[in-house]
Amino acid sequence: MARYDFASDNAAPATPEAMAALSAANVGYASGYGTDAVSARAADLIRAWLDADAEVRFVASGTAANSVALAALCRPFEAVVAHEHAHIITDEAGAPGFFGQGLGLIGLPGASGRIDPTALDAALAGPDVSYRQGVAALSLTNATEYGSVYSAGELCGLTAQAKGFQAKEGGLGVHLDGARLFNAAAAGFDVTAIAKGGVDLLVVGGTKAGMPPTEAVVILDRALARRFDIRLKQSGQLPSKARFFSAPFIGMLEDGAALRHAAHANAMAARLAAAQPFPLAHPVETNGVFVHMDEPTLKRLHAAGWFAYRFTDGSVRFMCSWATTEAAVDELAATLGALRP
Amino acid sequence: MARYDFASDNAAPATPEAMAALSAANVGYASGYGTDAVSARAADLIRAWLDADAEVRFVASGTAANSVALAALCRPFEAVVAHEHAHIITDEAGAPGFFGQGLGLIGLPGASGRIDPTALDAALAGPDVSYRQGVAALSLTNATEYGSVYSAGELCGLTAQAKGFQAKEGGLGVHLDGARLFNAAAAGFDVTAIAKGGVDLLVVGGTKAGMPPTEAVVILDRALARRFDIRLKQSGQLPSKARFFSAPFIGMLEDGAALRHAAHANAMAARLAAAQPFPLAHPVETNGVFVHMDEPTLKRLHAAGWFAYRFTDGSVRFMCSWATTEAAVDELAATLGALRP
Amino acid sequence: MARYDFASDNAAPATPEAMAALSAANVGYASGYGTDAVSARAADLIRAWLDADAEVRFVASGTAANSVALAALCRPFEAVVAHEHAHIITDEAGAPGFFGQGLGLIGLPGASGRIDPTALDAALAGPDVSYRQGVAALSLTNATEYGSVYSAGELCGLTAQAKGFQAKEGGLGVHLDGARLFNAAAAGFDVTAIAKGGVDLLVVGGTKAGMPPTEAVVILDRALARRFDIRLKQSGQLPSKARFFSAPFIGMLEDGAALRHAAHANAMAARLAAAQPFPLAHPVETNGVFVHMDEPTLKRLHAAGWFAYRFTDGSVRFMCSWATTEAAVDELAATLGALRP
Amino acid sequence: MARYDFASDNAAPATPEAMAALSAANVGYASGYGTDAVSARAADLIRAWLDADAEVRFVASGTAANSVALAALCRPFEAVVAHEHAHIITDEAGAPGFFGQGLGLIGLPGASGRIDPTALDAALAGPDVSYRQGVAALSLTNATEYGSVYSAGELCGLTAQAKGFQAKEGGLGVHLDGARLFNAAAAGFDVTAIAKGGVDLLVVGGTKAGMPPTEAVVILDRALARRFDIRLKQSGQLPSKARFFSAPFIGMLEDGAALRHAAHANAMAARLAAAQPFPLAHPVETNGVFVHMDEPTLKRLHAAGWFAYRFTDGSVRFMCSWATTEAAVDELAATLGALRP
Repeated sequence: MARYDFASDNAAPATPEAMAALSAANVGYASGYGTDAVSARAADLIRAWLDADAEVRFVASGTAANSVALAALCRPFEAVVAHEHAHIITDEAGAPGFFGQGLGLIGLPGASGRIDPTALDAALAGPDVSYRQGVAALSLTNATEYGSVYSAGELCGLTAQAKGFQAKEGGLGVHLDGARLFNAAAAGFDVTAIAKGGVDLLVVGGTKAGMPPTEAVVILDRALARRFDIRLKQSGQLPSKARFFSAPFIGMLEDGAALRHAAHANAMAARLAAAQPFPLAHPVETNGVFVHMDEPTLKRLHAAGWFAYRFTDGSVRFMCSWATTEAAVDELAATLGALRP
Repeated sequence: MARYDFASDNAAPATPEAMAALSAANVGYASGYGTDAVSARAADLIRAWLDADAEVRFVASGTAANSVALAALCRPFEAVVAHEHAHIITDEAGAPGFFGQGLGLIGLPGASGRIDPTALDAALAGPDVSYRQGVAALSLTNATEYGSVYSAGELCGLTAQAKGFQAKEGGLGVHLDGARLFNAAAAGFDVTAIAKGGVDLLVVGGTKAGMPPTEAVVILDRALARRFDIRLKQSGQLPSKARFFSAPFIGMLEDGAALRHAAHANAMAARLAAAQPFPLAHPVETNGVFVHMDEPTLKRLHAAGWFAYRFTDGSVRFMCSWATTEAAVDELAATLGALRP
Repeated sequence: MARYDFASDNAAPATPEAMAALSAANVGYASGYGTDAVSARAADLIRAWLDADAEVRFVASGTAANSVALAALCRPFEAVVAHEHAHIITDEAGAPGFFGQGLGLIGLPGASGRIDPTALDAALAGPDVSYRQGVAALSLTNATEYGSVYSAGELCGLTAQAKGFQAKEGGLGVHLDGARLFNAAAAGFDVTAIAKGGVDLLVVGGTKAGMPPTEAVVILDRALARRFDIRLKQSGQLPSKARFFSAPFIGMLEDGAALRHAAHANAMAARLAAAQPFPLAHPVETNGVFVHMDEPTLKRLHAAGWFAYRFTDGSVRFMCSWATTEAAVDELAATLGALRP
Repeated sequence: MARYDFASDNAAPATPEAMAALSAANVGYASGYGTDAVSARAADLIRAWLDADAEVRFVASGTAANSVALAALCRPFEAVVAHEHAHIITDEAGAPGFFGQGLGLIGLPGASGRIDPTALDAALAGPDVSYRQGVAALSLTNATEYGSVYSAGELCGLTAQAKGFQAKEGGLGVHLDGARLFNAAAAGFDVTAIAKGGVDLLVVGGTKAGMPPTEAVVILDRALARRFDIRLKQSGQLPSKARFFSAPFIGMLEDGAALRHAAHANAMAARLAAAQPFPLAHPVETNGVFVHMDEPTLKRLHAAGWFAYRFTDGSVRFMCSWATTEAAVDELAATLGALRP
């Protein structure tokens, strides 16, 4: 049986804090569809953390959260620009197009998952033409797919570019995929820059942070909030028992557990990177370690019982999580060392 | 603060058995997207309970489960026939049309939520015409929205009608919304009739049965299973941490807790019906009690602190759940008695 | 071989004026996708006729024109209110839901195809709820499906109701299906009321007026015009050789042929109504005659070689067109007289 | 005013034969929605030309025809493989995704618009994974976007590869975009190979061949024909006055006009290629000439009054049509000669 310790940060169990909050919330009757007190409390904690006046909803999956957000920012004959290796482009089975009835996705280059601002400018240059979907939104990811982190300044810079596009029409909408936002924050990213920088819709990932399945959709542009509950209901994302999706955020936010766990995951990645005999494909800034490894070696790693994915850019990915132990890192490092003596 | 005890069966907390299974599953790493051992075990238990050879998936909401199922049975220029008060028609914000890109919903009459077989025949009579969506699927609900129960014979009869329509083209697909299937089973419905009768896609509700958010999608027609995981992923319904959706079914099925709790809910509804001073709008066969009550009286009930919905047919609904106590039933009955002396 | 003279106004050939304009436009090269001089001239004539500052596009079918318009006014989790027998509800195979990814259609009652203002008020009463699509648009038809005509005052009254709904959010969008707008105009409807009354999107029917397949989409709310060409292109409705769709409008508008032909069609319907032995189901205000006729009699009419449809409300419909002759009316009347001596 | 002679083959007027057939069809009443005698005759001629037993429908635009076809072959969570510069990928504003609710498009490389068979094999290698849309259809174009022609053998080879993929599941569906099929046929392509080779859905272009707006959808796999009229109606592509879309095919097919005109267009392209001072970007096999030209030179060409597009691959395109004259070719060649002395 393969070990999934480093396969993905979603292979880990939920944290004790998240589970305790779930149990604590599981008391008595509650009104449905997000109108309960648990969900209100979780939303407050998220607003406080982000220092943002926003509507907050809780949904079941990151794919749904991102797709609902993009559908709110784009009409079918419009397109989203994102990093060419963004999760919404490479790993969600075309969900944005499904939720957005064919909305387009335009991939931009950039080192280690960060969009190159020059590439963004180029994508936004030139007039609309009738035979191409017009750009309507920018999607960012922080931490990125490759574990790198946009600084607050970089994020605000890209957002400003987006808002400046066809400014008389209101500019692009901006979506931030925060599946690993806690990891970015633990690495120094100032999350209050999100609202200040003009992001319109943010997804704060619960799952990869160590919660049971849940993601927070943060509606920073309140004009987008109108009928959002109907939008979610129609998308199958307005849970009747919403407290089960919101409670884990209470457990993770009210005493800082989320950041503490994320910092641990980042530290484990740094430890793995330091012990890594294979060349790094990307700088290790959060909880992922990407290395160059040929296919026969990867097969031998699998044969040795460790599961790891070859990723979009061809590198092999090892993800750490709140549950990763130093012992497991050292055990993996030893195996890797044996594969590349 | 209003009491939600009888507002809906999804207002209750999760059962101890479901929560215990959740905790038990929250150990160690697991492979993602439903490939884990917990999900396999839960699927086995569901297959055994239904006596059916089927693929089983676990998703986050009933709206999504039903809509994904209908989209699998209907193309956009086709339609589903269902009871005119079915949840998919009245309460899901058009989700089937969203998932199915405009697929049609045709409502049929029938007493207390059960489709009248004559009305089904009438709906299927006549040739296809180019300006109307062609009927492609039948959607049944058991127990129905009004708490009534199709017997195995009735369900098989309707299914046979559906399969006989344009039989050389394969007949209609049949979907069964089992949001309250455990309540129907506790009331005597033989669930092994589902597979035998020819249902193609079944949704077994977890939420209303006393689980955290989860629904099982049971793919009885295995030809529909091809690429179903991609379908779910694109719909935002292939959870990475699937064990959190499947584990509760283990807790509820392995020692009969689900049926035991459903029988309790049904008994509480019978108790409330017996003590009910308002005239019943429907026979009480499972866990819901529907009564005739005018609007001023409903307002006074709300003012007395009890939340209850006026339903699609104009009656007022009281739902019992696994958590409903005899004391609460008696307390509500006393309040109702005071409202209608 | 059945006679289709009265089956529908789209059974007639195109008028000489439309065909002559088509031939006149078929000279030399032209730029594509509606940027040609012929399309510009046709748009000018339509603006002048309507006394409206609007963008105008030409598309191939009324179904597409209506559906594109509704998709521009409604998001998938919103709904359109229309007369319950409106073409968009009963005769377009769910096209609005297809183009609008499941947008809802809510049918309202009203005599002879005109929406009852009280019913509109009732439909707009009450708050949004998460499980029902929120109303976002009103769709009107003039002349209606049953040939009745809204006066300018009636149309403006309904539009004002729509604009007053949730006024702080901008009210409802208003769509006018003008498949038979020329017939309404010939019956006295003041078309300049359309822009003045606040209609946002108008479809002016070419086909039923006696043109080859073409419909004009008139974008009265210019904010909706942004990226409309991309919307049309993606919908398969931005013709490369647009002059073939626009030229017929030149032939029909520049010397009043459209109104002249519509007046003739209306007069033929009046003649048929006067000679009609069957009881009228609706007042005859434009070019359709609807009568009460039982099924055996309709079968005998078919057997006598005349095709006619039984309509949504159960009546049997006879449509007159620009090509209908007095002789044909008299011949049909004689046949009908023999069927009901 | 710019000259559009070579901007696109859809800039030309309709041929005399097509217009004569249109006028001839414009007589008397006709039943609607493609059930008329003119459409039946046109379908017969297309079947005879292709030597194929197929259903034939007539629609208004190539974008719609292609998109409806792809939606018939692919579900939203599936994808189409096509040449990376195919019209469906680069020039239709995401229409396939709109009609197909987010179906995916995967671009393959290959010289001059022809798919490289090795690239097709590579795209089909490997198992389905849940986070990527599964390949369900192959889309070919003949003549290609760059004017090159697949031989019958090449087309059958690619089709066989497609049918061999997951063969026990039925293989891929195959769509052929024949926007310029007459040009390919005039260049020697044997059109009877289409049906024999296993193409499932073919679009025969009318517009670029010199007809008024019309395209024939040829349903070679009759299993796909079920409810196709409803599909078309819902897509806004079932014209009530179908004879206006079908008649031009009669004029163009019954005496060989289509091929004669296509041969002329091809000959004009050969003449232009021979006189061309700029280096050719692709072999000239049909009616398009693609050359390498820098931007300042293209601007000077525009300034000299000739409109030409820079194409997806960076080359500049000149299209010839049935209406192109030798004099115009020589005049353009002289201008080009002056620009590159």
